[in-house]
Amino acid sequence: MSQEKLDPVHLQAPYLIYFGDVVELGFAKTGLGLIQWRKELCAGQFRLPGCGVDGGIAEMSIDAAHAAGVRSVIVGVAPAGGALPASWVKDLAEAARRGMDIVSGLHVRLSEFSELAAAVAESGAQLIDIRVPPRRIGVATGEKRSGRRVLAVGTDCAVGKKYTALAIEKEMRSRGWSADFRATGQTGIMIAGSGVPIDSVIADFISGAAELLSPAAADDHWDVIEGQGALSHPSYAGVSLGLLHGSQPDALVLCHDASRTRILGLGSDQIYPLLSLNETIRGNLEAAQRVNPLARFVGVSVNSSGLETSERSGVLRRYEEETGLPVVDPIIDGPHRIVDRIEQEFEFH
Amino acid sequence: MSQEKLDPVHLQAPYLIYFGDVVELGFAKTGLGLIQWRKELCAGQFRLPGCGVDGGIAEMSIDAAHAAGVRSVIVGVAPAGGALPASWVKDLAEAARRGMDIVSGLHVRLSEFSELAAAVAESGAQLIDIRVPPRRIGVATGEKRSGRRVLAVGTDCAVGKKYTALAIEKEMRSRGWSADFRATGQTGIMIAGSGVPIDSVIADFISGAAELLSPAAADDHWDVIEGQGALSHPSYAGVSLGLLHGSQPDALVLCHDASRTRILGLGSDQIYPLLSLNETIRGNLEAAQRVNPLARFVGVSVNSSGLETSERSGVLRRYEEETGLPVVDPIIDGPHRIVDRIEQEFEFH
Repeated sequence: MSQEKLDPVHLQAPYLIYFGDVVELGFAKTGLGLIQWRKELCAGQFRLPGCGVDGGIAEMSIDAAHAAGVRSVIVGVAPAGGALPASWVKDLAEAARRGMDIVSGLHVRLSEFSELAAAVAESGAQLIDIRVPPRRIGVATGEKRSGRRVLAVGTDCAVGKKYTALAIEKEMRSRGWSADFRATGQTGIMIAGSGVPIDSVIADFISGAAELLSPAAADDHWDVIEGQGALSHPSYAGVSLGLLHGSQPDALVLCHDASRTRILGLGSDQIYPLLSLNETIRGNLEAAQRVNPLARFVGVSVNSSGLETSERSGVLRRYEEETGLPVVDPIIDGPHRIVDRIEQEFEFH
Repeated sequence: MSQEKLDPVHLQAPYLIYFGDVVELGFAKTGLGLIQWRKELCAGQFRLPGCGVDGGIAEMSIDAAHAAGVRSVIVGVAPAGGALPASWVKDLAEAARRGMDIVSGLHVRLSEFSELAAAVAESGAQLIDIRVPPRRIGVATGEKRSGRRVLAVGTDCAVGKKYTALAIEKEMRSRGWSADFRATGQTGIMIAGSGVPIDSVIADFISGAAELLSPAAADDHWDVIEGQGALSHPSYAGVSLGLLHGSQPDALVLCHDASRTRILGLGSDQIYPLLSLNETIRGNLEAAQRVNPLARFVGVSVNSSGLETSERSGVLRRYEEETGLPVVDPIIDGPHRIVDRIEQEFEFH
């Protein structure tokens, strides 16, 4: 049996963000998110010819990264299925031989690649798999916990759930509230330095892992929980529902990409249209109220980057009319109006 | 990395069914189900003082089982959380030392108990963990597959989903249809000799595992899929939803225990009442139609053993009025009326 990590992750900065030759932006959210939230720790990015993603930081070869004192190479992509192309393994092995840690959030373990295992054996660097969950998570008890919880849910994967949760945590803290971002995915865990990779736990324990992630807390404390997937996603809905039940959210925020019309990247000819905002709200609310009858939505967080500037305010206004909730693009507007709604709706924070 | 089994399970009969000192009937469904469906393979049962369960077969000590030529001891219980009490380990090690295989569907691996590992090293017997899933299951594609599928879903765990699926498979075959029971839990896999332990796969791959379990088939073939958990169960709903999406059922059968008023055995002071039959139907149908717009319910399968004989027909009639579906107790009435409904509803079998 392999020795698995029980401790929270501790990463060594500065980082080189590895994008390889990834094409779709939606699959590069790990690297892009890390640059967005911890830019000061990111020395540069590594991109192969054909790469369709740009984090907007210095281009850097493995050589240059070594010379610049980079201590960790972060695999910045998360393709469906979690494969690691052979050409990437070669680059990562080169970095590992120079003593840089390799950090991955993919399902496949870095140590399973003999070239990487040999490289770290030589250099003493570490292979860090963010996605290895803690062992011995229990079955969810469904017991009510003290403290308050807000969960970001979505109309799809990669619609801004992590960003929204991080922005809400930041805004709550700026108001002097006690608040913690609770990470459930690889990028979030890299940013937070701890968390549970919820999509990697054994299926029976999804809700139990969510219970562990946001333990009982002071009555006025808020856990701001990063959602995963979508209840309407034919590949990942089980993860989303287990996380929703185990989180027992008091408040929910719906995240949506305004330019998305169908479920992203199924690797399938089958087209799954997105559900409407209100259909998504109704489905999530029904499931949330099973474990917390007082659960309610407090806002909609929209990625409007795919819209023309001229149409943006009209689209957001229509969303407000449809849902009756404050609707913001957290990158443009900030999450203030959502946190205002939380402040109005709950007697204590 | 431990060597994991990729092959379907092959168990050696005859069996001794081990119940230990389990008290609640609902937790003994593995052993009781095996006795129900493969009684001819079960030589006897082993029960400790205080055991609240009786499979109705010969009581047998480890000594007597050895003398009777028993080849496998089946751990017949599945307590929430999957622990294995120390006193049971002692009994099982005694059996393993005598050369009997030990078969378990618990989450904890038999080989993790040094006493058991030592016993089989001495005798050459096998430790068989039914719950170890195949490796390298992929993410669900959501692609439509040929063939027909019927899935048993429930108002709770342990309400007869496996029994119902087995009874429907048997009835379909007796009518000359092409039909296969598809097992998703430990008992089902023991009975069928193959299957995927759906609650043991990595959360991201639940629906992918369900797609593997019932592959594309001839247009007139029926896969009869064993459901797990319940969409309304605060511990296991993620498994249920992932299985539902990946199964893409054409037909659904609702399973219910007429004497159950709340979710079983949460190990919690929190009471979760069962949802009504129609609420359960609505929730499952909505999720099923996300992947198969033509999905429909074809019957309700009721465990009425907790009812007085005098009230049974009245309760089942009320369920029929509530749901508009054929309602049967498959043990008393058989599943014929549900299979009749399938025959009416679908142009080909």
